[in-house]
Amino acid sequence: MQLAVGPIDSTDVIDPLDPTRFACAFSTSLHIPGTVDSEFEDALRYVLENPGSLIRPKLVFQMATAYGMEPARAQDLAVALEYFHTASLLFDDLPCMDNALERRGAPCTHLVYGEEGSILTALALINRAYSLTWRAAAGCARQLQQPALDYLERCLGVQGLLNGQSLDLHYATLPHTRITTERIAKGKTVSLIRLTLALPAMLGGASARELQQIERISLFWGLGYQIVDDLKDMLQGAAQAGKTTARDAELGRPNLAVVVGVPSAVRRLTRFIDLGDRVLHGLLASRRELHFLSRLRSELQQELARVTRDCFALAENERP
Amino acid sequence: MQLAVGPIDSTDVIDPLDPTRFACAFSTSLHIPGTVDSEFEDALRYVLENPGSLIRPKLVFQMATAYGMEPARAQDLAVALEYFHTASLLFDDLPCMDNALERRGAPCTHLVYGEEGSILTALALINRAYSLTWRAAAGCARQLQQPALDYLERCLGVQGLLNGQSLDLHYATLPHTRITTERIAKGKTVSLIRLTLALPAMLGGASARELQQIERISLFWGLGYQIVDDLKDMLQGAAQAGKTTARDAELGRPNLAVVVGVPSAVRRLTRFIDLGDRVLHGLLASRRELHFLSRLRSELQQELARVTRDCFALAENERP
Repeated sequence: MQLAVGPIDSTDVIDPLDPTRFACAFSTSLHIPGTVDSEFEDALRYVLENPGSLIRPKLVFQMATAYGMEPARAQDLAVALEYFHTASLLFDDLPCMDNALERRGAPCTHLVYGEEGSILTALALINRAYSLTWRAAAGCARQLQQPALDYLERCLGVQGLLNGQSLDLHYATLPHTRITTERIAKGKTVSLIRLTLALPAMLGGASARELQQIERISLFWGLGYQIVDDLKDMLQGAAQAGKTTARDAELGRPNLAVVVGVPSAVRRLTRFIDLGDRVLHGLLASRRELHFLSRLRSELQQELARVTRDCFALAENERP
Repeated sequence: MQLAVGPIDSTDVIDPLDPTRFACAFSTSLHIPGTVDSEFEDALRYVLENPGSLIRPKLVFQMATAYGMEPARAQDLAVALEYFHTASLLFDDLPCMDNALERRGAPCTHLVYGEEGSILTALALINRAYSLTWRAAAGCARQLQQPALDYLERCLGVQGLLNGQSLDLHYATLPHTRITTERIAKGKTVSLIRLTLALPAMLGGASARELQQIERISLFWGLGYQIVDDLKDMLQGAAQAGKTTARDAELGRPNLAVVVGVPSAVRRLTRFIDLGDRVLHGLLASRRELHFLSRLRSELQQELARVTRDCFALAENERP
C-alpha cells in the first residue's frame, strides 16, 4: 500500500519524551491524603501504580504542546484523559459489564478490592480528571474554554462513551450488522481518540478546518484500531481453539470480523487507513508540527500488516 | 431551647420558589439525544422523572441568588449539585454497597435496569453535573472560579464524599466510636451540605469570614441531620421489632445512637444546633439576605423535638 503521507522520518520513531514522565505523573497526580480510609488508599494505589502503555497521554501532550499549550498544563490534560480512560476500564471490567479477570497484566481491581473498591477508585479518578481538565483549560484563551468543555461532555456522556458502552452491553438485542458494530466503536473507541487528539487542539486554538480534519482522522483511526482489535480477537480465539473462531462470537460480543468476515474487515481497515491518509496529508501540509501523527498512522499500518498476514495464514492452514 | 436567631418570620415558611421549577429543571437539564441506546434512555428517564424532595437544589438556588448569581446560572448549579447527589445515591444503592431495594418511593434503578444501567445513568448524571457546574462558574468572576472548583473536587473526592462512603463500607473493621461515626458523617453528609451552602457562596464572592461561617454551619447541621437519621433508624427498627433496636445495629452500619446511646446522641444533636445557632447569628447579622437559613435551622430543631419525644416515649414503654 502506498504511504500517502510519505515515508516516516527516523526522528518520528524516537520518542521525544522521557518514558518515565507520564508513569510518574499518572501515579502522583491524584494526591491521597493521610485521612483516607486505608482500604480505599490501597485500591487507589493499586490502580495508580500500574499505568498502562501510556500511549494516550503522550499523544495528548504532543498535541497540546504542538498547539502551544505550556508543558505543565499539557501534562495536566494528558493525565486527566488517561484517568478518564482508566476509570472507564474499571467500570467496563465489573462483573455486571464485561466481567473481566485481568487488566494491565494484573488481576482486575474489583477482584482484589471488591466491586465497591473498584467503583470508588474509578470515581476518584473521574473527580480528579475533571479538576485537571479544568486546570488545563483555565490556562487557555477564555473563548476556547467553553467549546472544549462542551466537547469533553459530548465525548464522555450520553452521546459518546456511555452510549457506546450501553450499546455494547445490549448488543444481543441489536441487529448484528456493520452499522451496529461501528456505532458501538464510535461510542467506545472513537470518543476517546477524539478527546486525545481534538481536545488539546481545541484548547490550543486550532482552526475550525484543522479541528474538522483531526476529528475525521480520529474517526478513521478509531474505527481502524477497533477492527485491528476485532481481528486480533479472532487470532487469539484461533490460538486457543485451533480454528478461526472469535472469542467475541462465542461471548456474543460485537466484532466486525465476525459480522462481515475477515476479508471484508481487512478491506474496511485498509479503506480507513487510506481515508485517514488523505486527511492527514492535508493537515500536515498546513501544520508540520503534527508530524508525530504519521507515527501513529504507521503503527496502524503495521498492525494491519501483522493481523492480515496471521489471519490469512490461519485460513490457509484450515483449508482441507 | 432558646432560638438564638430569633423567631422565624412567617415569610420564611412560604417557599418563595415555584415548586415545579426544580422538578422540571431536574428532568430536562440532561438532554437525551435520539441516538441513545433505548435501554439506556429508559434508565435515564426512570431516574430523571422521579426527583426527590429537591430541598437541596432550592437551597443552592437561594444561596446563589442571595449572593447575586443570575437565576439561570444559579439553576444550573442547583441542578448540578442535585445530579451529583442523585449519582451518589445510585452508587450507594448497588448490591456491592448498601444493597438497597427502594429509593424515592420506587424500586432502585439497578433492580429495574440492572447494575450496569444504574452505573451508566449515574455516570451520565456526573458528566452533566460537571458541565453544568462549569457553566455556572464561567459566569462568575474569574478569580472565584478556581477556588470554587477546587472546593468541589475536595468535597466530592478522596477527601470528602468518596472517603465517607469507603469508611462507611468498611465500618466493621473500624473502632465503633463517636469519632468514627462522625468521620463517616463528615465525608458522606457534611460534604454534600458544604457544596449546597458554601459552593454557591464561594462563586458569589462571599468573604473569607462568611465562608468560614457557612462551612461551620454546614458541619454542625450536617452532623446534626445525621444524628436525626440515626435516631429515626432506631425508631423505625422499634416500629418493626417492637423494641429500641436500630436496624443499623443489626446490619452493622454506623449509627451514633447505637455507639453512645440515645440520650447522649440527643445531647450531641442539641449541642450541634446550639453551635450552629451561634455561627448563624453572626452570619445573619452581616448578611440579612441569608435569612432563609433560619428555616433550615428551624426544621432541624423540629426534627430534634419529634425524634426525642418518640425515642423517650418508646423508652418509657419498654420499662418493666
